[in-house]
Amino acid sequence: MQLLQDKIRTCGKVYPGNILKVDSFLNHQIDAELMLELGKEIARLYADERVTKVLTIEASGIAIAVMAAAQMRVPMLFAKKNHTKNLCDDVYRTTVTSFTHGVDYDVRVAKSFLHPNDRVLIVDDFLANGAALLGLADLVRQAGATLVGAAIAVEKGFQDGGAKVRAQGIRVESLAIVEEMNEDGIRFR
Amino acid sequence: MQLLQDKIRTCGKVYPGNILKVDSFLNHQIDAELMLELGKEIARLYADERVTKVLTIEASGIAIAVMAAAQMRVPMLFAKKNHTKNLCDDVYRTTVTSFTHGVDYDVRVAKSFLHPNDRVLIVDDFLANGAALLGLADLVRQAGATLVGAAIAVEKGFQDGGAKVRAQGIRVESLAIVEEMNEDGIRFR
Repeated sequence: MQLLQDKIRTCGKVYPGNILKVDSFLNHQIDAELMLELGKEIARLYADERVTKVLTIEASGIAIAVMAAAQMRVPMLFAKKNHTKNLCDDVYRTTVTSFTHGVDYDVRVAKSFLHPNDRVLIVDDFLANGAALLGLADLVRQAGATLVGAAIAVEKGFQDGGAKVRAQGIRVESLAIVEEMNEDGIRFR
Repeated sequence: MQLLQDKIRTCGKVYPGNILKVDSFLNHQIDAELMLELGKEIARLYADERVTKVLTIEASGIAIAVMAAAQMRVPMLFAKKNHTKNLCDDVYRTTVTSFTHGVDYDVRVAKSFLHPNDRVLIVDDFLANGAALLGLADLVRQAGATLVGAAIAVEKGFQDGGAKVRAQGIRVESLAIVEEMNEDGIRFR
């Protein structure tokens, strides 16, 4: 998606250790109008899939996911990372190892919001090693729901997450795939 | 706002201990189309305030905040609760005591995204004891920015947060104020 590639080129910052910092528009400060356009594109890509629910993970996936869900006129559900008093114990649960934070964490959704007749689209801001996406796919599987695919804002094409997830037969649509990056610039697939 | 009150009456659940569970449409599963309507109403309420930035706190404030920001055509910024590798140390920081979780936590925004010339609107899903809102207001103050006010989806009118925040001269617009609730029903102000 040209709009997103342009934004990454203009506002993204590349740091040693393959870190792409997009916190000026995607995961700390959020370009809300850009999120709306990403939501429209995601709705267009999955228009024929009769999606009944958009699933993401807190926190930075929420902005894109709610825009996509509003366009598709379906509810959005975000998996929680931290224990809260207000989430009852009747949950689907999986463990995700975070590349960014270097820790394992528990991810949970209430069973009451994922059903066998749901057709679920996973939406997230980043795909790197694929851990979060595979964790969300596991929650969908536990619920007996149908996973129609995933929509990602930025995929790091030089990490193995995209290949791993696609090898499981999961449709992945990434709106921008970074093939290579260094301090001189960013090349997209 | 009638639409939100109706939704709370239909889908909210009241539990002992003054817990109002709205996780079917506001803070776990999200009614994305309702969020869009809340965003429009917030933009209408603050239309004359020349807002330059919407500020919220992860995670459940993000969905409403991004909708309001898209309507107002300004960026949204969400304060972070957890330490991440990718947020540099150049931050404004404050401490918030959570009513829901019963713990203190650090809340941070990168200094690069809040400036003295910003006119900031705080958006959040809940106002109960006011701790999160006052924490966000403190971040705005540290940045030397102007706080034009706050927009809240659901205020618990029987807790003291709303009074505390308004006593500081902060404009608070709550789209639904729960005056009283018990297992028989919910009464709005």
